Formats: sequence, structure tokens, C-alpha cells
Amino acid sequence: MPSISQKGQRMPASPIRKLVPFAEAAKARGTQVLHLNIGQPDIPTPQVALDAIRHIDLKVVEYSHSAGMESYRKGLAGYYRAHGIQVGPEQIIITNGGSEALLFGMMACFDPGDELIVPEPFYANYNSFALSAGITVVPVRSGIDTGFALPPIAEFKKLITPRTKGILICNPGNPTGYLYSRAELETLRDIVRDHDLFLFSDEVYREFCYDGAEHVSAMTLAGIERNVVLVDSVSKRYSMCGARVGAFVTRNAELLATVMKFAQARLSPPTFGQIASEAALRTPASYFEEVIAEYRQRRDTLVNGLNTIPGVVCPLPKGAFYCVAELPIDDADTFCQWLLESFAHNGHTVMMAPASGFYAEPGPGRKQVRLAYVLERHKLELAVECLRLALEQYPGVVRTELAHSVHGR
Amino acid sequence: MPSISQKGQRMPASPIRKLVPFAEAAKARGTQVLHLNIGQPDIPTPQVALDAIRHIDLKVVEYSHSAGMESYRKGLAGYYRAHGIQVGPEQIIITNGGSEALLFGMMACFDPGDELIVPEPFYANYNSFALSAGITVVPVRSGIDTGFALPPIAEFKKLITPRTKGILICNPGNPTGYLYSRAELETLRDIVRDHDLFLFSDEVYREFCYDGAEHVSAMTLAGIERNVVLVDSVSKRYSMCGARVGAFVTRNAELLATVMKFAQARLSPPTFGQIASEAALRTPASYFEEVIAEYRQRRDTLVNGLNTIPGVVCPLPKGAFYCVAELPIDDADTFCQWLLESFAHNGHTVMMAPASGFYAEPGPGRKQVRLAYVLERHKLELAVECLRLALEQYPGVVRTELAHSVHGR
Repeated sequence: MPSISQKGQRMPASPIRKLVPFAEAAKARGTQVLHLNIGQPDIPTPQVALDAIRHIDLKVVEYSHSAGMESYRKGLAGYYRAHGIQVGPEQIIITNGGSEALLFGMMACFDPGDELIVPEPFYANYNSFALSAGITVVPVRSGIDTGFALPPIAEFKKLITPRTKGILICNPGNPTGYLYSRAELETLRDIVRDHDLFLFSDEVYREFCYDGAEHVSAMTLAGIERNVVLVDSVSKRYSMCGARVGAFVTRNAELLATVMKFAQARLSPPTFGQIASEAALRTPASYFEEVIAEYRQRRDTLVNGLNTIPGVVCPLPKGAFYCVAELPIDDADTFCQWLLESFAHNGHTVMMAPASGFYAEPGPGRKQVRLAYVLERHKLELAVECLRLALEQYPGVVRTELAHSVHGR
Repeated sequence: MPSISQKGQRMPASPIRKLVPFAEAAKARGTQVLHLNIGQPDIPTPQVALDAIRHIDLKVVEYSHSAGMESYRKGLAGYYRAHGIQVGPEQIIITNGGSEALLFGMMACFDPGDELIVPEPFYANYNSFALSAGITVVPVRSGIDTGFALPPIAEFKKLITPRTKGILICNPGNPTGYLYSRAELETLRDIVRDHDLFLFSDEVYREFCYDGAEHVSAMTLAGIERNVVLVDSVSKRYSMCGARVGAFVTRNAELLATVMKFAQARLSPPTFGQIASEAALRTPASYFEEVIAEYRQRRDTLVNGLNTIPGVVCPLPKGAFYCVAELPIDDADTFCQWLLESFAHNGHTVMMAPASGFYAEPGPGRKQVRLAYVLERHKLELAVECLRLALEQYPGVVRTELAHSVHGR
């Protein structure tokens, strides 16, 4: 049998999926598993998008244009303008989710061995796309003690080498929920401009900002117009993850022409998903108001609840629908598995994503977990109660200095 | 501005799309363009698939399983069994079209610098996926004089080096329409077994076989079960190119596990397309009987028509819905552009794909074009008439020896 590739061997398995067999076993035992481990929202998809699918009037489900349906790209450019991002439809290439936009962008911008600086913890699949493109992820650490703020500019500068070709941010961030301020983005802008780097900005959680905080797009940064790549997706915005519709957006014409060659090779993005996405542009503002109010309440329920548990530290995120908590434990992978294998409270347990998979090396996230607040509030309250009890029973509990100091405030 | 990647610079532009601006200009002048250049069928999508979409009953359009919906994979395994291919649902990973199956397979099997032997002319995008994965396509020439039959085994053996890791075939073939016989596939099986190679078999045109010819799947070749990768798609089978649903199928468990890591990184294939594809499995046999009868008649209309034009040679394909013709001209790229820029017959002209893009190097296909017979017969008759007149007027007409010898028979 021929051997599989080295790339295939090095490709990381999903840090979230590896616990799935234990969750299945728990369910088989009759335990209800509260899923805080994945970013699959329970919010209904807008009716206007579902209606467009139900009233579809095609005789032949044809390929769309490789860059996406023109009518959708025009509509999407209007959406961006309404959000202060000035781009035309010709600066947008519709992709199979944000995932494909990331992969195409990395393939088009970076050669094998090129270095991409990414604030960590970061979305685990950035590692996978970088590995697919043969590029090296260079993490710059953001710490839980600063609520996962952008690391100081000096930390970036230390990491820049002749092979550094780009910086990738997620704003607001998965897994931390951190929302970059304009001042932080201007700091990034200076580094990008001074070292002539690409800046990839994954803004798929744009709508989900809380407490009146403003989202600042990297596309609005003056002076680096041809350096910035916007990665976008309808998945979270319209609770429509299965549509598989994203976008690659840039004002760099040469880069657009290059990404178009990759887009042409795979023929087209999905026609049904684009029809739903175009209709979703007509989602009423009241939908977002309700959804954001709901997520904010969920965030408060979860994060405030977590911070009442002795030894637990969880910064309050300003965006997205995730948080990263540090727990008074030896090892989060072990703890998350133990929750599924050995714990139940009134027939319930909690599934979380160990944070190790969100770091370039597993060490720094060893005591951390990512929680997605994509469940109704009463379930989040139950999850917090489960965690409080679990941390009284778990054999590997360790009191950390950080936890002591924060809870001693 | 940072430079784009070398990979991005080397990525080939679509050989078909580069003529699009000339077609648009022709249309703007009022000329009707007969599109024989692309494989977008005009055949209606099965009603059962469209109905499933219209009756969709989802509240949240969720991610599916990364390997695809279990119900669809079970149904698809049943389809394969009905076609003599014994696989279970766990041996199938649903992909974003056949394109993603090819890309994932190449990433998982081959390292940069590995060599993949491909009979040429071949589907142009194989070059693009190989370039994305950093692998080297090694063409083995099939000639128009043998109707694009599999080259002799000795030709393959000459090309095998220590870096040779696989062979890729398309059966029936795009662009040639050639259908491999069982004897030819067994020849390939011997090479694959003796040199321990992967055999990628792109069988997306499986249904489209004419004159009672049988399709033999590479999955039925004994002794190389763990070497074979089946690449599949619903695009052509159900005239549903825009669904973007394909499949990666293998009995090699290690390879499946590796491809799953790539599949998890991009989260899931499209939900709507999978719902349509699962419903399409219930397409009645009468649909295929009608479609295949229609394509066979179109093939006869086009190929027989072409062979009545002095100096034109076009083998009669047994499968798919393409043919490659050699024309008595200096250069097919120039001729195809001239047809759009400088020719019209009763307000019509023809758009074809120059074959240069279907060869690893443009030379050998210089006088050849690919024609897709995805238009109604009266339009194909008109297209043949246009070509006959165009070849009387085109300034670059050259009588070739091959054409003379064939037409002298």
C-alpha cells in the first residue's frame, strides 16, 4: 500500500471532534450532554432566506460564475457599504464558506516556508489551512491576564524575519471573543505598512458585538488598502452554517486575479447557498437586535456564572459567542474527557473544547477551555452548575496562582 | 505592496474562460454564440431533487457532518452497490464537488515533488489542483490517431521514477470522451500493483456511455483495493453542477482518516446540495434512458457532422459529452478567438475550448479543440455549418497530413 503524504500525516485532527466518541458513550448511558464545544448556533435562520429556497424556480441547477452570482456580489457590496466598508462587487469573490477564502488567500499570498504571524489562542483550523499551503504559523501570545488583548507591538517586532509575509487576525475572535479596538488595529496597520505584509482579517462574527462596542473592520484602515484581505462568511451572521457561503474581499487587483484562478479551478461556489445568502441580505434589523440581545444575555449568564466558581477565571468578551476560561485543573483535555466519562449531575454533563488545540503548541492552553454560548440560558445555568460540582469532584484539581490573584481582587 | 506567491503566479488561468471577453463582445454586436466550450448541461435537473429543495423543512441550516450527511452517504453506498461498486457509507466522504475530492486526495497522498502520471489530453483543472498541492503532473500522451485510447504500458513504464506516486485517469474522459475497456483498466491495475501507486479514477461521467458500452469502475479491479481512489460528483449525473456535491471514495482506511482531517478543517459540505443529492438518488431509470438517448443523438449529430468537413478529424467517443477534434488550422487559440471576433454566419458563431489547456505543454494540442455537445441538435447542426464555412474563410487554414490520411481512407 502506498504511504500517505507527510502533509497528511502532520495535518492536525480536529481538537473538538476527538471527544465525540466519549460524548456518544455518555449519551448511550442516558446522560444529557450540554454542548458548549461547538460554534453551531441554535438561532433560527432568517425566514427570508428559507423562503427563497422554498420558492426556488430553477429548471437546471447550473454552475454560478466562479466568483459567485453577480446579483449576490452586488448585494453584498451594498451590505459592506452599509457597514462602512467601501468595496465594489468586482472586489468580492464568493467562496465555499470562510474556510475556502482562507485557503485560497494563503495559497495566493504565501509560498511554502513563508511565515504568518497569528495572535494566539486562535481558531484551530488556521493551522490546517496553513499546513495545506505549506506555510509556517508563528504565534504571538495574548494572555488571559489582559483578557486576550492584542499583544504589544514589540512582541510582533521580535517575531518578524525575512520570511514573514503576513499577519492573520480574527475580530471579534474565535476562541476568545476579544474585540480589537481602533487603536489596536492602527498598531497592526503600522506593522503591516512598515514591513509590507498582508493582513488577513477574519470578520465572520462582525455583527456580534456587545455593550455598545463598535466593530472596526481592517478594510477601513488607511494606507494599507492593497495589503488587507477580508475573510467573511454568512455562517454565523444568519445562523446558516450549512449554506457554505463565504467571501474573499480585497482591493488588491493582482491578488484578486490570482485568487480567481484558484476559484475557476473549483468551478463555482454553491448555487442554493448563494440564493439563500442573497435573500438573507434582506433580513430585518430587528432580527439582529433580538439575536444580539439574546447572545449578550447568554454571555452574561455563562461568564458571570463561571467567575463565581472558585479558581475559575473567564474574561468578559465583547464579541462573537465564545469565551476562554482558565480552570483550576491539571489538564483540560483530561478534564473534558472526565466530564464525559465519569461525571453527571442530575443526568447532565458538559462538553467543552480543550484550548490546547487553539494554540500553536499545546502547553500554554493546558488549563484552558473554550465555551460557546450557543444554548438557551437555562441550559447555560445548568452547565455552570455542572462545572461547579465537577470542579469539586475532579481528582486533578489544582489551584493556580492566576486564579487566586483574580479572585482575591 | 507584498508580492503574490510563486504558486499563485504559476497557477494556470482557465483555458476556457480566457475567451469570455471575446464572446461578450460578439454578443454585444448582436451575434448569437453557440456555446460548445463548457460542460454545463442544458438537461433539466430531476424533478425529485428540485422538489426536495422546495419542500425543505429546516429551522436552522446547520453544518452537516464533515464527511457528509449520514443518510446521504448510506443512500450513495446503495447507488454504488447498484453499479457493482461494493463500498459502505463509512468509505465515502462527501465533498464540495469532485473538485474538492481531487484536491483533498492529492494533499493526502502526495508530497511536493511527487509525480502523478496522467494520460493527456486531460481535464485542465487537474493541473491546478496538482499545482495547489505542489505535485508534478507527468503526462503520458494518448493520440487522436488511436481515438485517445490508453497509451501502451511501455509508455507508462518509461515515465516511472522513484518519485512516481500515482496515476490519475478520467473515465469516461473529459475532454476526449474516451471510455476505457476492462482490458485497459487491467493493464493499469498491473502497473499500479507492481509499482505500489495510488490510482485516482475520476468517474463523474459514469452514466454517460453509448452504443451499449459498459462502464468499468476502477473500484472493481481486484488486488489494488487500497490503492484506488474514486472521485465522483452529482454535477453531470443529475445536471446539478451548482449543487457542489461530490465524493471521495476509497477502501483505504488510513487514507480515509487522513482525508477526514482535511474535511474537518473546512467543516462541512453544503447542506442544501446534499438534500438535493440524496433526493436525486430516487431519480427514475427513465430519466437516464432519455438523457443518454439524447446525448447519443447529439454526439452523432456533432461528430458525424464534423467529420464531413474537409480536413477535420474527430474520433467517435463512447462516453461523457465531449469530443476532441483536430482542425486544418495553424493554431486553435487563434482560430477560436477569430470565430468570436471576425466570423458570423446568419448572425451565429461558435465558441469552443482550444485543446492547448488540456495538455501539460500547449504544443501537441495546438490544432485541436474540445467541443461539448450540451446543446439541442438543431443548434449542433448550425454549429457544424458555422465551422464548415469558417474553415473556408479562416486565413490560418493548413491542411494536415493526419487529416489527409484519415479523409483519404
